[in-house]
Formats: sequence, C-alpha cells, structure tokens
Amino acid sequence: MSQLFTYLNDARGRHLEDLLAFLRIPSISAQEVHRPDIERAADFLCDELRSLGLEVEKITGEGNPLVYAQTALDPARPTILIYGHYDVQPVDPEHLWNSPPFEPVVRDGVIYARGASDDKGQLYAHLKAVEAFVRTGTPLPVNVKFLIEGEEEKGGHSVYDYTEKNPEKLACDAVLVSDTSLYDENTPAITFSLRGMCYTEILVDGPAQDLHSGSFGGTVRNPGNAIAAIVAGLHDARGRVTVPGFYDDVVELDAAGRADLNRLPYGEAELVRDTGAPSSSGEAGYSILERMWVRPTCDVNGLWSGYTGEGGKTIIPAKAGAKVSMRLVPNQDPEKIARAFTDHVNALAPAGVKVEVRVLHNANPVLVPRDSAMMQAGLKALETGFGKPATFIGEGGSIPITGTFQSCLKVPVVMLGYGLPNDNIHSPNEKFHLDNYYNGIRTTVAFFGEAAKLAK
Amino acid sequence: MSQLFTYLNDARGRHLEDLLAFLRIPSISAQEVHRPDIERAADFLCDELRSLGLEVEKITGEGNPLVYAQTALDPARPTILIYGHYDVQPVDPEHLWNSPPFEPVVRDGVIYARGASDDKGQLYAHLKAVEAFVRTGTPLPVNVKFLIEGEEEKGGHSVYDYTEKNPEKLACDAVLVSDTSLYDENTPAITFSLRGMCYTEILVDGPAQDLHSGSFGGTVRNPGNAIAAIVAGLHDARGRVTVPGFYDDVVELDAAGRADLNRLPYGEAELVRDTGAPSSSGEAGYSILERMWVRPTCDVNGLWSGYTGEGGKTIIPAKAGAKVSMRLVPNQDPEKIARAFTDHVNALAPAGVKVEVRVLHNANPVLVPRDSAMMQAGLKALETGFGKPATFIGEGGSIPITGTFQSCLKVPVVMLGYGLPNDNIHSPNEKFHLDNYYNGIRTTVAFFGEAAKLAK
Repeated sequence: MSQLFTYLNDARGRHLEDLLAFLRIPSISAQEVHRPDIERAADFLCDELRSLGLEVEKITGEGNPLVYAQTALDPARPTILIYGHYDVQPVDPEHLWNSPPFEPVVRDGVIYARGASDDKGQLYAHLKAVEAFVRTGTPLPVNVKFLIEGEEEKGGHSVYDYTEKNPEKLACDAVLVSDTSLYDENTPAITFSLRGMCYTEILVDGPAQDLHSGSFGGTVRNPGNAIAAIVAGLHDARGRVTVPGFYDDVVELDAAGRADLNRLPYGEAELVRDTGAPSSSGEAGYSILERMWVRPTCDVNGLWSGYTGEGGKTIIPAKAGAKVSMRLVPNQDPEKIARAFTDHVNALAPAGVKVEVRVLHNANPVLVPRDSAMMQAGLKALETGFGKPATFIGEGGSIPITGTFQSCLKVPVVMLGYGLPNDNIHSPNEKFHLDNYYNGIRTTVAFFGEAAKLAK
Repeated sequence: MSQLFTYLNDARGRHLEDLLAFLRIPSISAQEVHRPDIERAADFLCDELRSLGLEVEKITGEGNPLVYAQTALDPARPTILIYGHYDVQPVDPEHLWNSPPFEPVVRDGVIYARGASDDKGQLYAHLKAVEAFVRTGTPLPVNVKFLIEGEEEKGGHSVYDYTEKNPEKLACDAVLVSDTSLYDENTPAITFSLRGMCYTEILVDGPAQDLHSGSFGGTVRNPGNAIAAIVAGLHDARGRVTVPGFYDDVVELDAAGRADLNRLPYGEAELVRDTGAPSSSGEAGYSILERMWVRPTCDVNGLWSGYTGEGGKTIIPAKAGAKVSMRLVPNQDPEKIARAFTDHVNALAPAGVKVEVRVLHNANPVLVPRDSAMMQAGLKALETGFGKPATFIGEGGSIPITGTFQSCLKVPVVMLGYGLPNDNIHSPNEKFHLDNYYNGIRTTVAFFGEAAKLAK
C-alpha cells in the first residue's frame, strides 16, 4: 500500500493534467449540438482504460455510448463494478461563471469546470486508482469492471436497459459509485440510503369556463377551493401523510442507526442557515436529519388556479391543479403508493368538481445495509484515503440507477462520495477540491485492498 | 298617459335613429386614445338635455366629465334622480364581432353595438321618456335630475366624489338606475339587492429560494401546502365560511322574501346549463338563488406556487399566494370583514412560514326595502311599460355607486333593468332588444306617473 501511495504522491501533477483534459470536453448530453463531444468523452475513457490493459467495449445503441471495461477476471478474487457518468449538465446561465466552464482552471487548490465534481472528477479518480496498480506493477487484488454512461444528466435509459439485460456480465460482489459527497469537508461519508419518488399531478375541473364570481359565487364548487381542500387533506396535524397505508412498508431505522445519524451536528440553526426558512417543520417525533434522509414526505411542487396577475379579477376559475410529489423510503413501493395516493385524492375530492390524478414519474428508494462487509470496507477505505473518521449519511434525493443495480445484481451499492455538498453541481462555477480528488484516488486504492480481504 | 304612449308609438323610428347616433360614438373610457370620444358622448347628452329645456352642467375635473341636468324644481312634487353612464367597455377581441361595434345595426328586432345595453340604451330610454312629456306639452308630474358619468367601466372616482360633496344639490325622493336587466325576456324585474365585496390577496413566504425537494423535503414548511391549509380552513363541511363573526351582521331574508325568490324557476338543471359545472354546490340550507343573491361567499379567484409547467420539477417553492374574495350582503361591513378575515388567516397559518394579507378592494352591499313606496311604484311602472307581471330579483355582483347613493342621499335606489341577462355586455356582439328599449321608455314614463302619486 505504501508503494502505491508514494506513486500517487509523485503523480499528482500528471493526474491533474489528465483530469483537466477530460474536463475540456463539453459533453453536455441534453444538447444535441454536443453529440460529437459525447463521443469524444466516451473515446477518451475507452483509450485510457485500454492503455491500462483492460478489455474495453464501446457499446452503441439508440442513446449515447456506454463504456464497459474489465480487467482479467480471477474467480478467486472479489469483483468490483464501478459506475459513473461522463456526460455533464448544461452551463447556462453562462454569464455567471467566473471562468469558462470548459476551460478548467485551478484557483487556491480548487478546480473550476463543468463536470469537475459531477461526475467526471469523481469517476476519473477510480481510473487513476487502477493506474497506480498497473504502473507500479502491483497485482490488482480485486477484479474490476467499469460501466460508464453518457445519459445520466438527461435521464436516458441505456444503462438501465443494459443492466437489466446483462446481469451475468455485470456480476460482482459490490458496486462502487462515486456521485455523492462527503458530509462536510472534515467528514468523509458513505451514503447508505436514498429516497425514492412518486411524482403526481392533480387536475381539478369545475365549470366549463371561468365564471363571474358575483353572478355565480356560492352556487358551484370553486376548483381553487377544491384543490386547496385536497392538498390540505394530505397531512394531519402532526405532519404525517394521511394516505392510507403510506407508512405500512417504511423500514424504521434501528436505535443504532438513529444514534449514528443524530451524532452529526445538524439542527435547527443549520437548517435555517441553509434554507432561509423561518424555522424547521415536519413530521413529529423525528429529528431534522431523519426527516431529511429516512422519512417519507409529501410536498407541493406547484399549484395553480385562475387569475394570478396584478390586482383583482372576480372569477370562479374553471380549473385548478397541483404537482404533488412524495419522497419514498425503503421499503415503500412507488407503484403501490401511487395507487393509494390516487384513491385518497379521489376520496378527498369534494362533490361538484371532476378530479384526475396523473402519475408522472416513479423511482425506488434505496437502502444499503450498513453492516454489510463491503460497506464496512468502504468506511475503512475512506478513513485511509482521507485520514479522518468516516460516517454513514443519508441522501434525500434519488439516484435511480442504484436501485436497478440492487435489484438486478443483488449486491451492496457502496457510495463513496468524493465531492462536497457545496460543489455547485448543476450550477455556475462547479468546482472540485484537489484534496478530494487526490484523497478519492487513495480511497479507491484502499477500497480495493479492503475488499480483497473479504475472501470469497 | 294614453296620449304619451301614442306619442311614443309614433316616435319609434326617430327614437331608434337617435339612439344609433349615440351608439356610434366610441366612448371607451379605459383607452386614452378615445378621450375625444368621451367628450363627444358627454356633449351629445348635454345638447339633447338642453334641447328638452333642462338646465345642464358639464362638470369637468380630473376625470371624465359628469353630465348634470335638472328640470324646473317644484317643491310640491317628488324628485327623481336618474343615474347612468355614457362610457363603454373596450371591444377586443374585435374579430369575434359579427358587425363593427361602433356601426350599430338592427337585425331581427335587435340592436348590435358596444354600449347598446350597457348602458347607453338603458340610460337613453330615460331621456326619451322626458322628451315625451316635453313634446306633447304634458307637464312633468315629478322633478327630474340627471347625473351621468363617463368612468363607470374603468372604475373612476368622479361620481363618488361629486355625490359625497353635493348631497343637497342631488337631494331627491328616489334614485332611478337602469343598468341591470329583466329576470328573463318574459319577466320584468326590479333588482332589490346587490352583494358587496372584500377582495384580498394572501402571500406566503417560506425558504429564501426554491429548495431541492430531495435535499430538504420533510424539514421545512412548504408554502404550497401552507396556502392550501389556509384556504381549506376558510370553509366548514357545510359550506359555511369559518371567519369568526362572518355571519353576525347578515340580514336574513324574511319568509315572504324567500318565497318570492324561490318562485322563480331556477334550480339545479338551470345552473348546470348556465355554468357547465358537474353539479351545484354551496352553503347548506339555502336555495341556489338565495346563495347567488342574498348569501355571502368566499371564493378563490387565483392560486399560485412553484412550478406549473409541463412535467415535473422537484422543488419546495419559496412562495405561494392566493387571491380570495368575499361577496358580502347587507349589513356586512367590508372593513370589519377584512379585519376578521385577516385575523382568521393569521390564525390558520401554520408555523414555519410568514403570511401576509393584503386587502385590495372593498364595496358595500346594497339592500333596497322591497316594501318602500318608490319600489312598489317601480313594480307597477314595469307592469305598465312591459305589459307583464314584474318581480323582485337579487344580483350577485356589485354596483358600488348605488351604495354611495343610499348612504349619501338616504333614499331608495330603484333599479329598473331594461336589458337581458344574455345581452353580451363586456363581450363581443353586445345587443339590446328594440322591444326592451321601447318598453323601457314606457316604463320610465309610467314610473314618473306612479311616483307623482306619492304626495310629499
């Protein structure tokens, strides 16, 4: 291990230059004009993986290419499948960038470029970890497979389809994903839970057209009042969601898990600082971090009816609507929740209007057992790589592909995050700290070593 | 009387031509480009009133001119103050008109033109009634004053200010207003009640900016959910408004009044036909016409929060809002209701958001005693003028100047409506039926006669 870390120390300058070259490719998947750049980014990875001696496939289909690569596979050794994505978010509003998004610069130990943290920098750390073994002549203690996609930022299906169709080819003992973040700059972390999603739209129809509220007020159900009654009926006074059966399948965190989470220094003051809200709010009986990471929610994302311009207009609106989404936790089933939600909304709907519920999008929640050997290996690797105690954290959002890996490959998905929560991903001035890049490479090297100890 | 009606029969052709000349003036008060036409319309009335021997004043101030005129005033006779407005609504969308809005045409006994019913045609009937007395040499049995404004359609203040400052000059025994309608083509009607208004806007502020609903969902109060809870809390399960004290000052219609209203053939089928709503709705214990005319309401006119475009956006909105207006009935006081509403909204507001209530507009409700002698005179005049039994009706909307007349002049405001509910006022193809014009003139003549019987 010390030989590998010495190599990594000496190679820092070149590792930075190589990453900057990768970051210069404007591989924005959402914009068709960048399709050639998507190919260049995929080729960049293929070339590098091939130069490291891996067997490489550029898999092309309807969508953007998948890059698959594998080392020689020794059945005696554990196998790690590494996932990442080479595509990046659009850059607008570009005038808010302090330097051009695809001309990466390093200022005060921080790389600024689109994709620096999400996900090129984090993904590339894994390639450089493999490089360390290859260039020092150290035998890789694990088999390594890479599966890298180019449609993550536009919600493409290629990697899902490929995973579902090729579980034997992708067979492994753990999936390694670095597309999350440390808890903070002093606390490396494994993300062990991701919330799922059920996103709906409620449409309320009343009169055939807007009515004069003087002529007809008091005689017909007002769709604006109706949508308010429906939405208000989704929670009780304790902040719990009233959809029947909503909590039935929720896995309650055990005492140790709750204690772990609540050790993190995040409370009322931190939440008010981060959100600007007057105070915290939510489900009674749970801490802020529990509500953020391991409890399900139901939120209005949008609401509309009638006249919303300046001054007054005296109408009874013909229509009203709301976008309402639920963040789900293990083992809630999005489809089952969608059915229960639809029934509940129909039950809440007052007479005198027509109500329709549309389900726009579902995603499964993910929970990785914290006590699994691969997760413990990840924790040790982080402590070695970053030189600081590591912890488990949850994530309120979704990374849908992790659910697919869990269900198709039946192994833990170890999310070793190398970014920071304030890396401005999806925003102007995206950044990635050099320390986190170098420590990330060290962590992956250490993870291979820890994983190898888990004899098959 | 028969001599007067004979004169009116003979004069029909000329009375139509004179009205068409008035309708050709595009006196749109909301559009500055029509300011010269406003002057022309005021001058048109001044000239005609002067030609009838009245003493005429064109009163100019900050707004559009008021036209004031009076006959010789005999203190032994009752005095009638006639109100109307010479300005009209804009004409857009103009392409939906079957003939140009300011080139009046008569098709199948109906005049089509902007202002035909609202209010030039109705107002002008009163001038032609005075003309009948003058041209036949019949002494007017009452003193007549005219107060005609040019800002009704843009909500100007001139006529309010003038009335408040000149109650002695405007002193009278009844105000006559023709700016409403028959109940239907076979039922002439006096409008005896108008609802008032308290129009508010509720603004909810949560986090400083939209938040990622994955990252923060479950930890802060969602302004979209909060506005829904507030609006839903404004009604109980029986459709009653929950603002404390809301019904305290409501004058309940007596048994005779309820029986009168409920004789009119308007029920579930008629409401569904007129509105396209799936069914009727509203306050338990009252008929549809009662809810429409003599019960107060509380309606959402607009509602907004977060993302309302296509598909999903996973945010907790920073803000939400609603426009909520209440239609008021005698003797509810808009200012008192506004205070109670504001307090109630603040009490309904959940913790974790800031809530502000703005009152945008107030108007007093109006109730004219149906048993007053002048109202009974109006009923008889309608029956004489239209040759059919007349009835009392309510109106769900507001005509704010009538409240000012009541409070400043302390006399009944007799609303003899000569239009029809489907005259397309404020819409393309506004119309006025010739029969209603001619019968309206007869009614005003008859009203002068009936009023004269009420010796002072």
